[in-house]
Amino acid sequence: MTMPDKKLILGMGLIDGYGGLHGAWRAPHVDPGTYADVDATVRHAKAAERGKFAFLFTPDFPAVRGDVEHSTISNLMDPLIQLSAVARETTNIGFVATGSTTFQEPFNTARQFKALDVLSHRDERYQRAHEAIQIVQALWGSWQEDAWVKDQVADRFIDPSKLRPINLKGQYLASRGPLAIPPSEQGQPVVFTSGGPSPHLLSIAGRYASGFIAEVWTIEEARAQRELVRNAAREAGRDPDEIKYIAGIMTTVAPTVREGLDRRLRYAGDVIEAGLPHLGAMLGIQIHPDRIDEPLMPQRLASAHASPRDPRSSNALAVAREGWSPRDVLAHGVIDFHPTVVGPGKLHADHLQEWFEAGAADGFWVTPDIYEDGVDAFVDEVVPILQERGIYPTEYPGTTLRANLGVPHQYGLDPRIIGAEQ
Amino acid sequence: MTMPDKKLILGMGLIDGYGGLHGAWRAPHVDPGTYADVDATVRHAKAAERGKFAFLFTPDFPAVRGDVEHSTISNLMDPLIQLSAVARETTNIGFVATGSTTFQEPFNTARQFKALDVLSHRDERYQRAHEAIQIVQALWGSWQEDAWVKDQVADRFIDPSKLRPINLKGQYLASRGPLAIPPSEQGQPVVFTSGGPSPHLLSIAGRYASGFIAEVWTIEEARAQRELVRNAAREAGRDPDEIKYIAGIMTTVAPTVREGLDRRLRYAGDVIEAGLPHLGAMLGIQIHPDRIDEPLMPQRLASAHASPRDPRSSNALAVAREGWSPRDVLAHGVIDFHPTVVGPGKLHADHLQEWFEAGAADGFWVTPDIYEDGVDAFVDEVVPILQERGIYPTEYPGTTLRANLGVPHQYGLDPRIIGAEQ
Repeated sequence: MTMPDKKLILGMGLIDGYGGLHGAWRAPHVDPGTYADVDATVRHAKAAERGKFAFLFTPDFPAVRGDVEHSTISNLMDPLIQLSAVARETTNIGFVATGSTTFQEPFNTARQFKALDVLSHRDERYQRAHEAIQIVQALWGSWQEDAWVKDQVADRFIDPSKLRPINLKGQYLASRGPLAIPPSEQGQPVVFTSGGPSPHLLSIAGRYASGFIAEVWTIEEARAQRELVRNAAREAGRDPDEIKYIAGIMTTVAPTVREGLDRRLRYAGDVIEAGLPHLGAMLGIQIHPDRIDEPLMPQRLASAHASPRDPRSSNALAVAREGWSPRDVLAHGVIDFHPTVVGPGKLHADHLQEWFEAGAADGFWVTPDIYEDGVDAFVDEVVPILQERGIYPTEYPGTTLRANLGVPHQYGLDPRIIGAEQ
Repeated sequence: MTMPDKKLILGMGLIDGYGGLHGAWRAPHVDPGTYADVDATVRHAKAAERGKFAFLFTPDFPAVRGDVEHSTISNLMDPLIQLSAVARETTNIGFVATGSTTFQEPFNTARQFKALDVLSHRDERYQRAHEAIQIVQALWGSWQEDAWVKDQVADRFIDPSKLRPINLKGQYLASRGPLAIPPSEQGQPVVFTSGGPSPHLLSIAGRYASGFIAEVWTIEEARAQRELVRNAAREAGRDPDEIKYIAGIMTTVAPTVREGLDRRLRYAGDVIEAGLPHLGAMLGIQIHPDRIDEPLMPQRLASAHASPRDPRSSNALAVAREGWSPRDVLAHGVIDFHPTVVGPGKLHADHLQEWFEAGAADGFWVTPDIYEDGVDAFVDEVVPILQERGIYPTEYPGTTLRANLGVPHQYGLDPRIIGAEQ
């Protein structure tokens, strides 16, 4: 199903410095002050770069939410400020940061993302609304690629005729004038979108995005969603290979599954026991809390069935049928945000290869259980297997995020999209 | 007039990477691509740090303006993104960046400035409107100083009772909820204001600012303005020494005044000849363009007088009376944005000491003619003289901008100011 020379793409989700486990911040080898420690962010980014990861992805929501008493913040302090620091100490890895079309002015978004793009000699985006994206891309193109003459002898810094002020006025947003930032090595930041396959999001992704960050639990769901995304690109007049579909995965790399489960149970907090009723509902059986540590017997599992109301149920049932206790089934991450793999590197490589070759993803964004050692474990135990199998690059294909994703050059608005109805 | 142990404060204005001269970008030892080269920004910051400068100041206006064909951009690509990179490679120097109360949401301003403050282990601010500043400072204080428990054993990350959501609603701006950033080493960023002594700006400076960035041309003007600023602080119930008045200075350090003038004339562009009519008006005499290179004769100068319509006129007349040609008078920078000193280090030290001891400034922000060698020249030729004279520190007094400015601790809103009418 995949071209022999097509390689899968890996990115790493950078949440708040601790890891995918609720209690990752409590692990004894983790400094609990990591949230404010950009040295740690840099260290994790460098580890991912050693594994030829194409990008870091910083999901973001501009507020404090969730159970911060026990389970950290789920955001970086500020994605662009921290990625600017990371850019000073990494070379190839790209940045995919969240930019809000609701809570930020497009001019400031355009300015900050492009400044990061220029100084990092790489970059990224994630957007929600057509107007905001069109204004941002138009601002990125407002300084034409050859506008910056910088001829000292001829006393000519910029060719003013090549600064093209934009004059875009939509229903909600407007912007005038050019941006004061020159082209970056890859021209301009790469736009990513994220979310589910709503018609509104697909229309945005199909027109503007080079990457689509997904949350999907099964190969079937991912294949169907990836096809919707590719069709949206076709409908916008683009080649569907111009947009890379990136599925999520959470990882616990350990010598055995048992050791991996124990590591997860140590830092899972109350999440495991609180998840028991949900597990019962997914499997269509009642599980008494007193029996959380008793393996589910074959005769009980015979009557179980995967609930159609949760796409994670079929995986939960498959894990349960391996004979684990309900606690261990939950420790497999069966109700986590993404498919979770627990165990030796080979299991992780098998999961990635199966999805990739089934056309369920062009690449993956990885959230390790605990960054402090989980990034290194993935890079040392999983990446070499993928490389041996010939489905992952042994060197970065290029020096920009565009090159490493394999998406085409773009500068300013895409002429195939301009004027399309919003 | 000054306390014997009071030292003057130096900051450096970081404009666009080239320098204070219009044609600084054309100097052969300057890479004309410096605007997009954060390595150069880092190099200039490190040079200033070697000279124990307390801060870097990045004036900013979010647009492309002026004669960009011949004289560069006059802004950094993006102040916070670039200062984040600088923070990775400097230790003591603080950051004073422009934050717009008009073009940015207070939540984003609060978040980005405080994130920079935490990761740099230092910091800064500059504001215009009471509401915006109060919201920003309240957000900075919304995570109480001891809220971040991070007790791994007790499974307690944050004490939620010490996250104090703000609920501020003014006439123009509103914000709810806490900020997700812990205290920095200095508690929170330092607020600077800038501009002239309008009642509106004085009321803001007097209540919130720890630094006042000034544009003044004479000692008399500066003393009067500094007194207004100090009185505004008194009226807000503060000690006037809590706000430091920082005057501007532009520098050309050269072995002789003649060599300094020649350096300036080489990169001044058309500015010199274009300034001739203005110089005539300042001196109350007509100067024919053909005579721009003829020294002004004593008999002509006898009839000259400093125009009361331009505060720079008295200095222009004093320079003219030294016997320079009109071109050289203009090359002295007599119509520049700030007082300009041209010549050996001692002249610069004399200027700074005279203003400082006259009570005209607590410190200065320095804009060198050409950053590439002008920062080093100032640090090597001027700073040692100031240190010898005992009016400038030989080591950084502390590890934070607050300590290096000598302004008091603050966390959240100043309780003396809260509730004051706006």
